[in-house]
Amino acid sequence: MPGIKAMLQSHPEQSLHADLDKLVACIEACQACAQACTTCADACLSEPTVAELTRCIRSDLSCSAVCQATAAVLSRSPEGDARIVSALLEACAQACVVCAEECERHADLHEHCRLCAEACRSCERVCRDLIGTPS
Amino acid sequence: MPGIKAMLQSHPEQSLHADLDKLVACIEACQACAQACTTCADACLSEPTVAELTRCIRSDLSCSAVCQATAAVLSRSPEGDARIVSALLEACAQACVVCAEECERHADLHEHCRLCAEACRSCERVCRDLIGTPS
Amino acid sequence: MPGIKAMLQSHPEQSLHADLDKLVACIEACQACAQACTTCADACLSEPTVAELTRCIRSDLSCSAVCQATAAVLSRSPEGDARIVSALLEACAQACVVCAEECERHADLHEHCRLCAEACRSCERVCRDLIGTPS
Amino acid sequence: MPGIKAMLQSHPEQSLHADLDKLVACIEACQACAQACTTCADACLSEPTVAELTRCIRSDLSCSAVCQATAAVLSRSPEGDARIVSALLEACAQACVVCAEECERHADLHEHCRLCAEACRSCERVCRDLIGTPS
Repeated sequence: MPGIKAMLQSHPEQSLHADLDKLVACIEACQACAQACTTCADACLSEPTVAELTRCIRSDLSCSAVCQATAAVLSRSPEGDARIVSALLEACAQACVVCAEECERHADLHEHCRLCAEACRSCERVCRDLIGTPS
Repeated sequence: MPGIKAMLQSHPEQSLHADLDKLVACIEACQACAQACTTCADACLSEPTVAELTRCIRSDLSCSAVCQATAAVLSRSPEGDARIVSALLEACAQACVVCAEECERHADLHEHCRLCAEACRSCERVCRDLIGTPS
Repeated sequence: MPGIKAMLQSHPEQSLHADLDKLVACIEACQACAQACTTCADACLSEPTVAELTRCIRSDLSCSAVCQATAAVLSRSPEGDARIVSALLEACAQACVVCAEECERHADLHEHCRLCAEACRSCERVCRDLIGTPS
Repeated sequence: MPGIKAMLQSHPEQSLHADLDKLVACIEACQACAQACTTCADACLSEPTVAELTRCIRSDLSCSAVCQATAAVLSRSPEGDARIVSALLEACAQACVVCAEECERHADLHEHCRLCAEACRSCERVCRDLIGTPS
């Protein structure tokens, strides 16, 4: 399988982003976070204490939806929609913060929450990093 | 088929939003805009002048992804993620503005661009309306 | 807001489908079902008996994902991917059957399950109807 | 960032799938294929010969939507929806075949099509492999 970087380098527009490695890292983190959140929500459903985890399940599902959209938008040339990219990166970082905070409250009890919080924190960091970089 | 309002009214949490009609209007507009943008992008691909419409196709596809995520997030209780909802509504309104501006440049020539711009403007308006309403 | 039919009629390819009304009905049903399933899953999370509804929540979330993808694929010209459309319509009809069966088990107790089952049954019917129509 | 395997292993249900490594490989391949298809479609838009690549762009976009839905469905416990998983894996394998065939027609001219075809072929293979494995 080709990696994300190879795909982006095959694009005819020679500069999709000033810092290609940061862009690659962000797409990877969004995909990893979307997957982690989907599995964490499902794992919460299997816990005997599911009734206490509904807030976590909800933020997982919303964070997953935002990360999935962000991964897709970042995989396209920003021609014409640099403002969409910026606004969506802000929303993605915000979703990751909310979801990480919630998962961290259950991290001692549930390994899936601990791992998911980690994925959210990574994703938030690289989103903010990309926002701060001239495109 | 049940409508969006009936679905939301069947939710055990009695107040998903202070103004249920505004919430319904926003979910409807996001779904309509996602559909319009997907079809507009595809219609642009069928135009003889497709090479001049790439910016439009790109903003269509990104706007569609953001609207789809927003419709899903709005269809859940905001328990735990009111901050996600706000941030995503901002991103959605921004995506709709960008896409509307681009489609409007081609509205005289292409009916699909004219209709899509209309869908984007409606969606932007109801997103901003919902942001301004206490939840 | 322009409707789905107006959008499809503005497409330069004069015949997206032999029966445009069936195509419109199918896109509408997929969007309605995706929304109903997302809200039903969330409503189940708010029920005191959530631990007995995990199977329902899971089929809701999977059905919603499939319906969302189907609505998007149907909103494009089938040029080059009539086989994708057929395979996805089959998967969508199957997801709707599974989700409807599960929701129907709780329909007496939960109005959201009753309405969601109705949306799934409608969506299954129009998907099968579209599969059976020459495109 | 935690990997997909670590996330699945943290799930309370001890056997999400008889062969966890095959499940991990399939989720990874679906995410990689969704990303490759999104970038290939966008890269095609930047080619001077875009008007000859519309069929490729369309199958890219549809394949991407199906792969994204499949990655999400596979990230949940199959409780209650093994039939959804099977049907969606079939649709995903079909979408990958169609998209690979189309991309391969342009693989000599466009590196992004060559890489995308490779991602589609990998994804098709692991989807079929998972279908053939008792869950």
